[in-house]
Amino acid sequence: MADRPLAVVLVSGGLDSCVAAAVFNQTHSLAFLHLNYRQRTEAREQRAFDALAGHFSVGPRLAVDLAYMEQIGGTALIGTHTPVPEDAPKPGRVPPTYVPFRNANLLGIGVAWAETLGADAVVIGAHQADSDYPDCRAGFFAAYNQMVQWGTRPERAIVVHTPLIALDKGGIVSLGARLGAPFHLTWSCYQAEERACGRCHSCRLRLAGFAAAGLVDPIAYAA
Amino acid sequence: MADRPLAVVLVSGGLDSCVAAAVFNQTHSLAFLHLNYRQRTEAREQRAFDALAGHFSVGPRLAVDLAYMEQIGGTALIGTHTPVPEDAPKPGRVPPTYVPFRNANLLGIGVAWAETLGADAVVIGAHQADSDYPDCRAGFFAAYNQMVQWGTRPERAIVVHTPLIALDKGGIVSLGARLGAPFHLTWSCYQAEERACGRCHSCRLRLAGFAAAGLVDPIAYAA
Repeated sequence: MADRPLAVVLVSGGLDSCVAAAVFNQTHSLAFLHLNYRQRTEAREQRAFDALAGHFSVGPRLAVDLAYMEQIGGTALIGTHTPVPEDAPKPGRVPPTYVPFRNANLLGIGVAWAETLGADAVVIGAHQADSDYPDCRAGFFAAYNQMVQWGTRPERAIVVHTPLIALDKGGIVSLGARLGAPFHLTWSCYQAEERACGRCHSCRLRLAGFAAAGLVDPIAYAA
Repeated sequence: MADRPLAVVLVSGGLDSCVAAAVFNQTHSLAFLHLNYRQRTEAREQRAFDALAGHFSVGPRLAVDLAYMEQIGGTALIGTHTPVPEDAPKPGRVPPTYVPFRNANLLGIGVAWAETLGADAVVIGAHQADSDYPDCRAGFFAAYNQMVQWGTRPERAIVVHTPLIALDKGGIVSLGARLGAPFHLTWSCYQAEERACGRCHSCRLRLAGFAAAGLVDPIAYAA
């Protein structure tokens, strides 16, 4: 394991980052980066992060507090005052849970840490099938990688990888199942922290993904 | 003033960001963003930020604490254990005061705030003449702007501007003097907080800039 290259994986604790970690676990040693931007369910996500790091025997772990995303605001996903919508967002519209320029900010921290650690990869479980977030599109990540090449030390060659970019939720569940990803350790619900609500947009996507893959989600849901 | 477009200016409190603010003060209302990444002289820089914001009658002001840059480390500019070098860095080498991927991280916050405020510009006083930092080159900022176009809401058109990119320190002082920039309110020294040391690399560049412009620096230096 010691001669494997190192990959920094952005791990929220959800399904997508778990499967992205399982993909790179085949070829790399893993470093796990958790970004707390004061989501409602942050405490629960942090528990899922710790459980996943244990499962993958991860050495370098870093949890970064991005209080500034709360200062900047502009979204329903942060803080507890704006209700989280239960319906799917309208196609072609940026959904109200959009955090301004979120992925650029998260990846900036991942790339800085990768440069310090000597990692050659930064891995994010983003995918464009299910959303209209501008910073989840393949073109965004291609442009991001051009910028990384300009902005990092010339002796480094850090690449941002999006192994799930072309998959839908069913495809992500199927891929994770093939790789033995520990779904029972993940958390996706935007709303609750003990039993998943089963009603918020994130729960609905997750449940639809397991249904499409013909599998049963192992986590507990409210009745 | 109310019908002017809004520009988010990254203001460290130093000479460069003061002159960049003076340039955009001609055409925009200004919002000031200060990024505290636990530099040694942070308290002094914060005082300079407040004084400059007062001078330019700035409304929206935001100071963001980037503790994570200290967690990530990898530089002599953060913390108090590694000595700040007094010599100029070697040409063609990345200097030890380089903060990994710093400008990408700072601009990410600036663009997120610009998107929330409805600003059309993010302004940074970077210039490539005096340094070998990879993320101070014009090509880096061009690539960054491509990425911003992909990563922000389609109804926004946010552009990162580098009005000083082609200038050396003498040119920056001359430009600032023409625009009436309040040099006496700025702080550049990496080392001290009462009287500038006059010996660190940042002080040397500043003094050489005033000398090249044929002007006297109005701030106080240690004997």
